Amino acid sequence: MKKQILLTPGPSQVPPRVAEVAARPMIHHRTPEFREVLARIHKNIRCVMGTTGDVFILASTGTGALEAGVANTLSAGDKVLCAVAGKFGERYSEICQAFGMNVVEIVKEWGGLVTASDVRKALESHPDAKAVFVTHSETSTGALHPLHEIGPVVREHGALFIVDTVSALGGVPMKMDEWGIDMLAAGSQKALMIGPGLAFLGMSARAWKAYETSTLPKFYFDMKHYKKRWEEKGETPFTSAVTLCLQVDEALQMIMEEGLDNVIERHRRLSRACKAGAAALGLEFYSENRSDIETVVRVPDGIDGVALVSMAQERFGIKLSGGQAQVKGKIIRIAHMGYATEQDVILALSALEMCLARMGFDAPLGAGVKAAEEVFQNEM
Amino acid sequence: MKKQILLTPGPSQVPPRVAEVAARPMIHHRTPEFREVLARIHKNIRCVMGTTGDVFILASTGTGALEAGVANTLSAGDKVLCAVAGKFGERYSEICQAFGMNVVEIVKEWGGLVTASDVRKALESHPDAKAVFVTHSETSTGALHPLHEIGPVVREHGALFIVDTVSALGGVPMKMDEWGIDMLAAGSQKALMIGPGLAFLGMSARAWKAYETSTLPKFYFDMKHYKKRWEEKGETPFTSAVTLCLQVDEALQMIMEEGLDNVIERHRRLSRACKAGAAALGLEFYSENRSDIETVVRVPDGIDGVALVSMAQERFGIKLSGGQAQVKGKIIRIAHMGYATEQDVILALSALEMCLARMGFDAPLGAGVKAAEEVFQNEM
Repeated sequence: MKKQILLTPGPSQVPPRVAEVAARPMIHHRTPEFREVLARIHKNIRCVMGTTGDVFILASTGTGALEAGVANTLSAGDKVLCAVAGKFGERYSEICQAFGMNVVEIVKEWGGLVTASDVRKALESHPDAKAVFVTHSETSTGALHPLHEIGPVVREHGALFIVDTVSALGGVPMKMDEWGIDMLAAGSQKALMIGPGLAFLGMSARAWKAYETSTLPKFYFDMKHYKKRWEEKGETPFTSAVTLCLQVDEALQMIMEEGLDNVIERHRRLSRACKAGAAALGLEFYSENRSDIETVVRVPDGIDGVALVSMAQERFGIKLSGGQAQVKGKIIRIAHMGYATEQDVILALSALEMCLARMGFDAPLGAGVKAAEEVFQNEM
Repeated sequence: MKKQILLTPGPSQVPPRVAEVAARPMIHHRTPEFREVLARIHKNIRCVMGTTGDVFILASTGTGALEAGVANTLSAGDKVLCAVAGKFGERYSEICQAFGMNVVEIVKEWGGLVTASDVRKALESHPDAKAVFVTHSETSTGALHPLHEIGPVVREHGALFIVDTVSALGGVPMKMDEWGIDMLAAGSQKALMIGPGLAFLGMSARAWKAYETSTLPKFYFDMKHYKKRWEEKGETPFTSAVTLCLQVDEALQMIMEEGLDNVIERHRRLSRACKAGAAALGLEFYSENRSDIETVVRVPDGIDGVALVSMAQERFGIKLSGGQAQVKGKIIRIAHMGYATEQDVILALSALEMCLARMGFDAPLGAGVKAAEEVFQNEM
């Protein structure tokens, strides 16, 4: 007998209450019943995004929403700045290049941070930049970009501020309007607690202004269709991903019942405990300004990171993530987002310390768990 | 107490066995376990599409796959022919226009059919056409385009043959390779028996040849990413819509267990019975060359079509569809696709004849059901 516990930075665990909804009989998407669902999702997503502006539901994964951010606001040849400090920063840059943008990358080493000061310098060097792309929580490294500091710099310059919060929304604070974000892309399979396949896009009035002059070809991700259908009928222009909408509706209601501030605070507490546990094991963090949705540590010298992740799953039923691309085998990522509790952190640290000890790393059994327990004790 | 039965042409009913799968604990998409799921889907979708070529799974609705058919093979300014005889033919044309194609529409009245001879004439008038777009089952009208006749004409000319089988795949025969189809777009929420949100794209070697010279910008629907990741890892390039993939895997296994030929034959039988019932009620069919996935009839003079659809649902729990756009209120559509049985046809006809009688149409109670029963009796 083995319980499998999913602690990867997306997909994340789905609460039973949300999972069950997917097994209900299918309903049609052009009905009063379903319009109610969509209306509630819009209301709650607005709240989680911190916006009173337009929000749209896309039947795609987060990458589709990233593309929508580009295709609806820009034109081929436009100069844009992309903050690149990990895999998802690179993805924004790839999308912009695929759409013929003149891309200037603001590059930091993986694990590093593109700061407001970096963005200011880049904008001074490239005053003709039309947009700045930043990844909120860079899941490939664990870093959290300080959007609240970058936003005002971008706004002052007049460029569009386009943000990927795919992995962060619902797990860390997000104030789209206050921070001056114009296009905000989010996904369903992280802190929003359902499976992958649904994305959300917040769109500011400034973004709509940019839409008017954007000449990139688009259809499935053309937000004009979404806005029109929403305003006229309270529906999506193309068929809604009904199952996933019903699920995210339920998940968002759970977030509202717990209280968004409490949800964010829970993420903070789990993050603090998991990071305290990792530190107590003598592990080194991989990134600066660490996001609360995951804990990312370097694999100690002499340890096989890929084997460690396998052992945690096969022997202890704890599914962690290793590194992607250039950090494959070099980091371990423990996600504590969405439907995650203190229990998950305890089990993750317990599996981690047992695996490390078994693989010859000098980590005292129980030390990580103890440090996490101390955090929880102090916050009872 | 009321049982609600969904008989709309998408979404359609989901078998309990498939629905349950969605409620299982979430799994990660970069695992041997999930790669097995994807491999099985690919194998079975190939079989249902009738191709030995490439097939891809998209996290989008069918419209995303339609767009992929355009964006991966053509360039702005290319001349294309679009067969337009209903809402989804119009959609192909809209997508092509959005991507800057030089669109020539081959227009028939809604309910009509674009024939091989129409396509031949159009190709003769436009020998520079790069592609021909045809909707297989035009769900807005109930017509089925004769792809087996159109395909050879297109191939002879040398244009690409790009087909929307979103609502038909799994319900009527499809022989992608034999009919010379180059891009084939399908959806999940019709005869494939899961909810909306997943799409499938078949892509021929000729389509890949066209890919090389296509200059339309693309990223989320860039099939190069899909092909590379599939060949290297047996995965999707972006996150898979895990829940929906698990479901369609189960649904495709059900189709294989029943036997694809038997599934197609079941659709034929239900279609024959439903159409016999409609004819017995004195109703007039809306379209030529009627598809087996639905029965589409004109609303008799003097009857309020919108009210009839409401009454069928509210009074009898049978969810039918009315007409879209220019035929709103003028037609009734009864879908019998996917997880549909003789019982569904009986109940649909029963509700239909009761509603018609109640609304003053001279339809003898029981006549529609009787005609359907005769079909079933003859085929026992």
